[in-house]
Amino acid sequence: MLISKSKNKVLNCINQFKQIVGDNYVFIDEETLNNYAHDETENLHFLPDTVLKPKTAEEISAIMKICNTYKIPVTPRGAGTGLSGGALPNLGGVLLSTERLNTIIEIDERNLQVTVEPGVITEVLQNAVKEKGLFYPPDPSSRGSCFIGGNIAENSGGPKAVKYGVVKDYVLNLQVVLPTGEIIWTGANVLKNSTGYNLTQLMVGSEGTLGIVTKIVLKLLPHPKYDLLMLVPFNNLEKAGEAVSAIFRAGFTPSALELVEIDALKITSKMLGGNTVVPVTDEMEAHLIIEVDGNNMDVLMNEMEVIGELLTQFDCGDIFFADDAQQKAALWILRRRAAEAVKLDGYTIEEDTVVPRAELPALIKGVKQLGEQYSFKAVCYGHAGDGNLHIRIKKEGSVYSLNNPEIIPALKALFELVKKLGGTISGEHGIGLIQKEYMPVMFDDISFQLMKGIKKTFDPNNILNKGKIFDVD
Amino acid sequence: MLISKSKNKVLNCINQFKQIVGDNYVFIDEETLNNYAHDETENLHFLPDTVLKPKTAEEISAIMKICNTYKIPVTPRGAGTGLSGGALPNLGGVLLSTERLNTIIEIDERNLQVTVEPGVITEVLQNAVKEKGLFYPPDPSSRGSCFIGGNIAENSGGPKAVKYGVVKDYVLNLQVVLPTGEIIWTGANVLKNSTGYNLTQLMVGSEGTLGIVTKIVLKLLPHPKYDLLMLVPFNNLEKAGEAVSAIFRAGFTPSALELVEIDALKITSKMLGGNTVVPVTDEMEAHLIIEVDGNNMDVLMNEMEVIGELLTQFDCGDIFFADDAQQKAALWILRRRAAEAVKLDGYTIEEDTVVPRAELPALIKGVKQLGEQYSFKAVCYGHAGDGNLHIRIKKEGSVYSLNNPEIIPALKALFELVKKLGGTISGEHGIGLIQKEYMPVMFDDISFQLMKGIKKTFDPNNILNKGKIFDVD
Repeated sequence: MLISKSKNKVLNCINQFKQIVGDNYVFIDEETLNNYAHDETENLHFLPDTVLKPKTAEEISAIMKICNTYKIPVTPRGAGTGLSGGALPNLGGVLLSTERLNTIIEIDERNLQVTVEPGVITEVLQNAVKEKGLFYPPDPSSRGSCFIGGNIAENSGGPKAVKYGVVKDYVLNLQVVLPTGEIIWTGANVLKNSTGYNLTQLMVGSEGTLGIVTKIVLKLLPHPKYDLLMLVPFNNLEKAGEAVSAIFRAGFTPSALELVEIDALKITSKMLGGNTVVPVTDEMEAHLIIEVDGNNMDVLMNEMEVIGELLTQFDCGDIFFADDAQQKAALWILRRRAAEAVKLDGYTIEEDTVVPRAELPALIKGVKQLGEQYSFKAVCYGHAGDGNLHIRIKKEGSVYSLNNPEIIPALKALFELVKKLGGTISGEHGIGLIQKEYMPVMFDDISFQLMKGIKKTFDPNNILNKGKIFDVD
Repeated sequence: MLISKSKNKVLNCINQFKQIVGDNYVFIDEETLNNYAHDETENLHFLPDTVLKPKTAEEISAIMKICNTYKIPVTPRGAGTGLSGGALPNLGGVLLSTERLNTIIEIDERNLQVTVEPGVITEVLQNAVKEKGLFYPPDPSSRGSCFIGGNIAENSGGPKAVKYGVVKDYVLNLQVVLPTGEIIWTGANVLKNSTGYNLTQLMVGSEGTLGIVTKIVLKLLPHPKYDLLMLVPFNNLEKAGEAVSAIFRAGFTPSALELVEIDALKITSKMLGGNTVVPVTDEMEAHLIIEVDGNNMDVLMNEMEVIGELLTQFDCGDIFFADDAQQKAALWILRRRAAEAVKLDGYTIEEDTVVPRAELPALIKGVKQLGEQYSFKAVCYGHAGDGNLHIRIKKEGSVYSLNNPEIIPALKALFELVKKLGGTISGEHGIGLIQKEYMPVMFDDISFQLMKGIKKTFDPNNILNKGKIFDVD
């Protein structure tokens, strides 16, 4: 492995870093550097020159001032569960972990808000507010391990997004350390805000390239009292896609509406030792998992019934209603562990396409055609309710790398199809390092110039997560 | 009135403008210039040098290229219903009206989306989608006359925002003509998007300073089948504020939760010739108007009942349930026409403060104290459910002007109170021209530099709505 250009600069600053965060939180040992060299993105590894674990915004500010002075690249990192390489220290330099900023500062029950540090695990946050009867809906599949800060960076979604929206819909205000070291608050702790440019929304989904989020104020909802879950097998994948659109058109907004196609189901079932609630058979092409939630059980039962009747028009098989919490959990495992299962099975390339919901059948059909054309196998699953389809790709005899000439044309063709259908490259995983190549499919030079201008305004020396999303000239 | 610095430049370009938009849509006559010299903001008047009424994005692009070349100030304008002076041609130059971009391009029933031009009246849009069973919730009080484009510029809210969110929560994608004349789309027509910086959200609420929106793609919802409305008088204004917070804490999310205090009620009642559904008496200090909506009437009836019981703990008077559409309309008139009534009564200064919901009683109390301290009279009404309080101010013997030394210290004290309570200057009206003075209460130099950097990236010659929100150095 090459020595990074910044290694000497970093080593010269190690004592300063130790003064800021303490000796115990500055790492240059090989094992630690290796641990922070990868995230959940395919097979990519980049060694940082040091790993720093600050505890406060002030410490991060001091670190950024040094790095800005010496133009040392800084890569901020949450839990390292990202799927687009956003937390990879691609240029060496400082890997800045937010894992010690892990406090839920205040659950404000009067205003239905929570103030939290970025290193809190999403599910920990959800459980803490649930204890007060409150609800923070965005729940990526990795919610048991990912950090809320990473969710902000990627504008994460998850199954509940179809009814409750994504992370951006819950962020009221952010404390941010800028690349130059200054600390700002982006807004105010209010539900409506028309006071200057929306720096809060600009930060959300900016993938750690504009600043390091150190405090987060989120809107909460009253927690719905009940939910019901059903699993519906379909004999035909495209019909399943059509059914999704019909549910909304009939006036329902399920709290989750997930699709898993048969190949993903089989692989997941195999990983689970066949231990699935319902048998996975060859006659069906896909499952829909449909959840409704609310405060009145009779209303929910009725909704499920009417949705069930509607679905019979789309060649569905026998509908399975989850009877209790255990069955619900088992159904969710089939969906939530699909990514892990297909990855283990060699489907290492993950795409995060999103299209207008009704175009889902066309996208699924197109993916299969592209597979034949470019000799890859693809399995699909994802958040059908909001048109967000995760496509996992396996190409025999081809190891994934960023510049693999066998893979780039296939992915480019996929994204051109997505664009043609009115969609875009990423719905909730971000662009990071691995989708950068394909950004020109979506944006022309003018839009790039705007984004680059914004980047330069926030980060004049281009030190923070440099080379992610796009390259600054 | 002084001749604007740009007058000669504009007159030299008149023929070019005529070639672009046609002779009939270039105006330099005094009557037209006067008509476009003001909006609904207090008593401010600024004459433009010309009024242009283009029909397409391409025409606007051509106009912007000329204005950018000659550095002619351009003020974009929707329906002129703004309350912060955002559409005032404060520097003369070109007043660019979007009134001829007034087509609903497509209601996409399959995807629950609508594509619309900026000059469509908000209520016209709402009615058009309602005919298809669909719902576009944000409804400012001026919805019968304001344009959807202006709503985007100001990130408008309205009564439904408490349950359904504000404009920013519905905008999926925007076609924008940049100050330099290029035309871009900011995103894609999808419900989730993590593809590059969120230019869509940056445009929303940027008050026409970053670009001119020419096409808008909005998310729609299934229209709820039923709603119920009640009016609740309170003997004590602060108790009314406390009741607001308690409703949410009990797990309810009303589709509207409005507050009108007694002085505003009396003035409105007087304007309506006493023709109010319920008598307005001196014993009460405020009304709450509470609406719930949904698809199941039994559930709604039950919600109203439980909320009604809850409110008795806060010294409320007899609750009035609206029995039919006529009574509902009459109750809404009391609220929706309050702004007009108090303005006619001399309360010409309107503030648009927003605080965390539970701080409403403290804000209302503080406003009254400041009134005594600074010798002004204030009436309050607004969207209590989301902490957004409109405060109308009357100062005897003092005509409002931007630099009135009698008024500035009072407003500054008000905004400092708002900030202390965790709130901000504007919830839905924007900063425009009239709140610019007070922006430093909310933002420090660092944040200003970021906003100014963004402005310079989009508008290097600072020609578009120059001098609104903040001054660029």
